[in-house]
Amino acid sequence: MACKFYLHKNKGRKVESGHPWIFTDEIEEYDGEYTNGDIVEVYNFRRDFLGKGYINDVSKIAIRILTRDINEEIDEDFFKRRLSDAWEYRKKVIDTSSCRFVFGEADFLPGLTIDKFEDYYVIQSLALGIDKYKDIIVKILVEEYGAKGVYERSDASVRELEGMEQTKGFLTEPFDTMVQIVENGVKYYVDIENGQKTGFFLDQKENRAAIQKICKDAEVLDCFTHTGSFALNAGIAGARSVLGIDISQHAVDFATRNAELNGLSNTVKFECHNAFDVLTEWSKAGRKFDVVILDPPAFTKSRESVKGATRGYKDINLRGLKMVKSGGFFITCSCSHFMKEDLFRQTIADAAKDAKRTLRQVEFRTQAPDHPILWNSDESYYLKFIIFQVI
Amino acid sequence: MACKFYLHKNKGRKVESGHPWIFTDEIEEYDGEYTNGDIVEVYNFRRDFLGKGYINDVSKIAIRILTRDINEEIDEDFFKRRLSDAWEYRKKVIDTSSCRFVFGEADFLPGLTIDKFEDYYVIQSLALGIDKYKDIIVKILVEEYGAKGVYERSDASVRELEGMEQTKGFLTEPFDTMVQIVENGVKYYVDIENGQKTGFFLDQKENRAAIQKICKDAEVLDCFTHTGSFALNAGIAGARSVLGIDISQHAVDFATRNAELNGLSNTVKFECHNAFDVLTEWSKAGRKFDVVILDPPAFTKSRESVKGATRGYKDINLRGLKMVKSGGFFITCSCSHFMKEDLFRQTIADAAKDAKRTLRQVEFRTQAPDHPILWNSDESYYLKFIIFQVI
Repeated sequence: MACKFYLHKNKGRKVESGHPWIFTDEIEEYDGEYTNGDIVEVYNFRRDFLGKGYINDVSKIAIRILTRDINEEIDEDFFKRRLSDAWEYRKKVIDTSSCRFVFGEADFLPGLTIDKFEDYYVIQSLALGIDKYKDIIVKILVEEYGAKGVYERSDASVRELEGMEQTKGFLTEPFDTMVQIVENGVKYYVDIENGQKTGFFLDQKENRAAIQKICKDAEVLDCFTHTGSFALNAGIAGARSVLGIDISQHAVDFATRNAELNGLSNTVKFECHNAFDVLTEWSKAGRKFDVVILDPPAFTKSRESVKGATRGYKDINLRGLKMVKSGGFFITCSCSHFMKEDLFRQTIADAAKDAKRTLRQVEFRTQAPDHPILWNSDESYYLKFIIFQVI
Repeated sequence: MACKFYLHKNKGRKVESGHPWIFTDEIEEYDGEYTNGDIVEVYNFRRDFLGKGYINDVSKIAIRILTRDINEEIDEDFFKRRLSDAWEYRKKVIDTSSCRFVFGEADFLPGLTIDKFEDYYVIQSLALGIDKYKDIIVKILVEEYGAKGVYERSDASVRELEGMEQTKGFLTEPFDTMVQIVENGVKYYVDIENGQKTGFFLDQKENRAAIQKICKDAEVLDCFTHTGSFALNAGIAGARSVLGIDISQHAVDFATRNAELNGLSNTVKFECHNAFDVLTEWSKAGRKFDVVILDPPAFTKSRESVKGATRGYKDINLRGLKMVKSGGFFITCSCSHFMKEDLFRQTIADAAKDAKRTLRQVEFRTQAPDHPILWNSDESYYLKFIIFQVI
């Protein structure tokens, strides 16, 4: 018998509205026995069933809901159904040659991320309750989705909040972890083993495609280029010249290799710079570009550091805006969930005011549809992406 | 000598930040003489030059700024430059076979709209100061942009607030005002003379394209179909069946003719219904669709009627959501500027709660880039468009 958890009166409203998390302080009492990682049942104070999920009392998020159906067993068939739903959805909304296959909470599989790079899959488990089902998930990927190899990238520090160790390695026979993919017509090497997160940021796929039309014949500056993806989309779209910069020489080398892979070495170059520094220098020297792209890493990963992050976003946007020729384009993003859309917009408006530039919004976008945003679970919304014309 | 207008102390901040409107109550005094429609100069209380624009003291918006450059004359060359900027921008961001060529304030030509339908142009002037330059604008369209014909659709009631009459008619030699266009691979008849606004809503072009991927093999319901545009995009994408409904029999007949034009009569049908009524009826009867599209007309055109409009949006979204099969898609829009994005989102969330449906946001979009959003002039942002998967 699954252990039953009862919430305090007036608690659990978010869960009832569709959010999958139960916090420790929402729980009044429980009936039965459990071990962390077990599937337990959750009820409100009126003893109405709310859902079933896995428990980990080491985490502030004690329980994460997997199903709202009291009769649904959490077994191999459950994971088969969830993965099938996730896959059918992605086949409808995105190019699935490489894509995010499972996006945790938003695919009703809290704590689990699966990215697909051609025939290779990368799994990230952020919760004890998912770790337990890893073998089943790998089995399904191999048997039903033709996975030639599965690699685990559960080397995220957030696991430690759950009392778990960081881990990475093969979940199938070893394979060459330098995988080649194609996205928007651009080829990339993806370093599944040592790249950031799962090896490649798939969430900007359609945003990268969206810049192609404005990059033809343009001089383009791509800041925080990482694997070179925006730069290469500009290059393949026919930019006259593209300069991608990154603070990491490793990233610059990797991006350069990606440019070679696409035969774009003549137009797409990469240099190792700190964007904050060189934008100021170049701006003073009067250097300008037709298109400037800013895709910085998250400046904040918590509510507490938003204020400092806002200063960082304003600063980099101010510097970036000064580098755009009149009538040119400015592309700016924030991938931090804690940098809310309204605050991000206000920050850009402040930067534009200081830079004395007028902004015309061409397009506003979010993360790609293989990273769906579950309403009532606003943690699933994180990526803001805007294209402006700058006057 | 242009008449000079001086603003009150602490007034004109919005103008200084880029907004093109001066309200009557912002003006302290003026020096010189003017006739309504004249170009006048605007200064703040410190006598700093803010811009030049046309005046109409009958309007609450007394002056609309055309240029921030004191040396820029408002003459034929001025309009040539503005139209050239508008055209070069559109060539970069959108398919220009048919598009919005000039979007008023956001193209720094307040009061002027120009839509291009293949080689035919439709002009709408909403201000006396634009009426005066109509001949020049037509001349430029014919001589520089190869216009085969120009038609005026200044039959908007808002002109009466400016003390002007509504007017429509040919600005060149007469031509057949039933023009054929192609958008996203779909052909349309556009009724330049008697269609709504300028004959066709170009602002949803890319949003229509965005639904194609989810409509393949689907049963689709398109509510408020008007010229049948979403329905036809579903049809051309390979929907199994599409039903478009509209309260106007004229719209139904017109949409049916567009379906015939595309050879889609077998799959795309149109019926004359009040969406509010039939959605309730069909919902009770258990009828459901894979994809439901709601593109209602603006339920509010003023700040005062937002509350009633919110009820309308909630109601229609609630009824629409009930019609979607589990795992199907729901597409909803608001084209009212006064229905702000946050309020629209909240209204949909309320509707989903009442309908007991879980929403996954696939894509959020706004008006197409040929209707750019001028920041600091928030009237230019009006169209919200969201695709959801409904669980």
